[in-house]
Amino acid sequence: MVKARKIVLVRHFEGQPRTEDFRIEEEDLPPVKEGQILAEAVYFSVDPFQKSHRAMHKVGDTFYGAQVARIVESRAPGFPVGRHVVAYWGWRDRTVADVGSSRPEPPLYVPPPRLVPHLGDLPLSLSLGALGMPGNSAYFPLLDICKPKPGEVVAVTGAAGAVGSVVGQIARIKGCTVIGFAGSDAKVKWLKEDLGFHHAFNYKKTDVSTALKQAAPDGVDVYFDNVGGDISTAVMSNMRYRGRIVVIGAISQYNELEHQKLVNLPFSFLAQQLRLEGCAVARYHDRWEEGISQLTKWVKEGKLKYRETVTKGFQNTPKAFIGMLRGENFGKAVVKL
Amino acid sequence: MVKARKIVLVRHFEGQPRTEDFRIEEEDLPPVKEGQILAEAVYFSVDPFQKSHRAMHKVGDTFYGAQVARIVESRAPGFPVGRHVVAYWGWRDRTVADVGSSRPEPPLYVPPPRLVPHLGDLPLSLSLGALGMPGNSAYFPLLDICKPKPGEVVAVTGAAGAVGSVVGQIARIKGCTVIGFAGSDAKVKWLKEDLGFHHAFNYKKTDVSTALKQAAPDGVDVYFDNVGGDISTAVMSNMRYRGRIVVIGAISQYNELEHQKLVNLPFSFLAQQLRLEGCAVARYHDRWEEGISQLTKWVKEGKLKYRETVTKGFQNTPKAFIGMLRGENFGKAVVKL
Repeated sequence: MVKARKIVLVRHFEGQPRTEDFRIEEEDLPPVKEGQILAEAVYFSVDPFQKSHRAMHKVGDTFYGAQVARIVESRAPGFPVGRHVVAYWGWRDRTVADVGSSRPEPPLYVPPPRLVPHLGDLPLSLSLGALGMPGNSAYFPLLDICKPKPGEVVAVTGAAGAVGSVVGQIARIKGCTVIGFAGSDAKVKWLKEDLGFHHAFNYKKTDVSTALKQAAPDGVDVYFDNVGGDISTAVMSNMRYRGRIVVIGAISQYNELEHQKLVNLPFSFLAQQLRLEGCAVARYHDRWEEGISQLTKWVKEGKLKYRETVTKGFQNTPKAFIGMLRGENFGKAVVKL
Repeated sequence: MVKARKIVLVRHFEGQPRTEDFRIEEEDLPPVKEGQILAEAVYFSVDPFQKSHRAMHKVGDTFYGAQVARIVESRAPGFPVGRHVVAYWGWRDRTVADVGSSRPEPPLYVPPPRLVPHLGDLPLSLSLGALGMPGNSAYFPLLDICKPKPGEVVAVTGAAGAVGSVVGQIARIKGCTVIGFAGSDAKVKWLKEDLGFHHAFNYKKTDVSTALKQAAPDGVDVYFDNVGGDISTAVMSNMRYRGRIVVIGAISQYNELEHQKLVNLPFSFLAQQLRLEGCAVARYHDRWEEGISQLTKWVKEGKLKYRETVTKGFQNTPKAFIGMLRGENFGKAVVKL
């Protein structure tokens, strides 16, 4: 009998998650049936969205999230032993699953396992980062919803994170002026010196509105909002006429039991004729490969750089998750099993 | 020498405007030059937007706004004596002006005078209401930005006003379920019994969120926001997945020297993947005639009903304006000279 270890939610978070909110359990796996695979996790993803919805997790369930896993047994055509998949099986080290199963409804979209394309020399973990969900979460909302034009000003918060770091680089590739906000001087240095952001600021030390008035005196054309909260209000108050805003994350808000009150947006939206859209990348599942293949091309050409913060060890996954929520990561946070 | 009377701003409003904030002055008009007309005002428009921007009015200037005027002298081809124009000359009873002059920049868009089409039996004042700027302010933002589909739920605030009453009726014509919010029981009765709204509520007596949960248990697909403030927050908190919101007015906010703080929108926008856009109808000046001719067709077919609140007398214009801001009007508020 094959055994699996899994990380289970013990209680719902109150404010920030703590390691005591998780517990490791074991289970026996069933035999592999027709249409199924057995796969062993190689990397777990830890992502901000995993903290967002109470509805997403039930106490006692395996904590929901993505992993890269190696197929070790297969009775599913097209999923040969030795290849890897990205799957939303949660934090568990071995899994027997149908390759066709998915759950398309919000708030918890569970896509079917996707075969990882051949990446050459690139690390497998990229399929959880710049060449996976976070990469596409930058690619589609920025290009399809905000449609930045060359010469326009693009601002991004959470700029040193898995999504934000890709957003800024795509905007730079498209000929925009890029302004990033991140939470440490080291991150700011990385954004400017390595990733080619034109301006970057440590929002903990800088007044966001003042920084924007200097870096973009005519206003911001596109704001890619990863974080919500007061920093977003500040950016949204410095938009140019007909500016576009996409909201794909609200990490600053996931801790709040009661949502904060912010400045009344509709009034400024009216005066400047702004557009704001909330977007979950699952919306683009039909165009998934388009994003991944363009991002892969840019990475191989050296135009899109990435950085990963890798925590080692299955049992350290909750700690990696908590650290990522505190902003301790550069780029994508993953766990190597 | 031809004389004109004009209503001039004496001081900027503090909170609600008062009659003492205006003064009547006289001036001598210059002779009509090549490319110019002399016209006599027949109706003045009083509109919520006239209160919105301090930048729009300077103390001592004629108060900015639209009028319908009859051409009495013309040295401009295509503008014959006897025809009428809609022009943004402000509240003045006689005007000599270029027919080609306009100012396209925000925040104060001044279109050139437009010739009123032949309306048959319909009142001229409609070209300041359902067949003018307010009509197009309903038509384009609703159809071009929100794109309601048959069977969808459309909610509108300020529903008994010049714009809102047209919004609800267009949505009904397009096969939507229409929910209106207005400020008196008499208005609610008018919306339901005469204009064919499926649901209408007096927001002063009803909890908006509770009303929406009953009238639209699956949520609102399209919200046409005329008013801003807490009622908007309530509607935006009851949107369906992928809902669309257009903000074209913020009458509840025009009185506030400091903008109110409202519930944090980006978070709910993310969860439901909503879209919000602020829109000034000047954006559609290239398609102006398209909107007017469709609206005229609906009025002539009896599908689009209108009502006007007419105040008589040049000197009563500030009073009509103040009453409209208090919600005393049904449908479009105009002044007949």
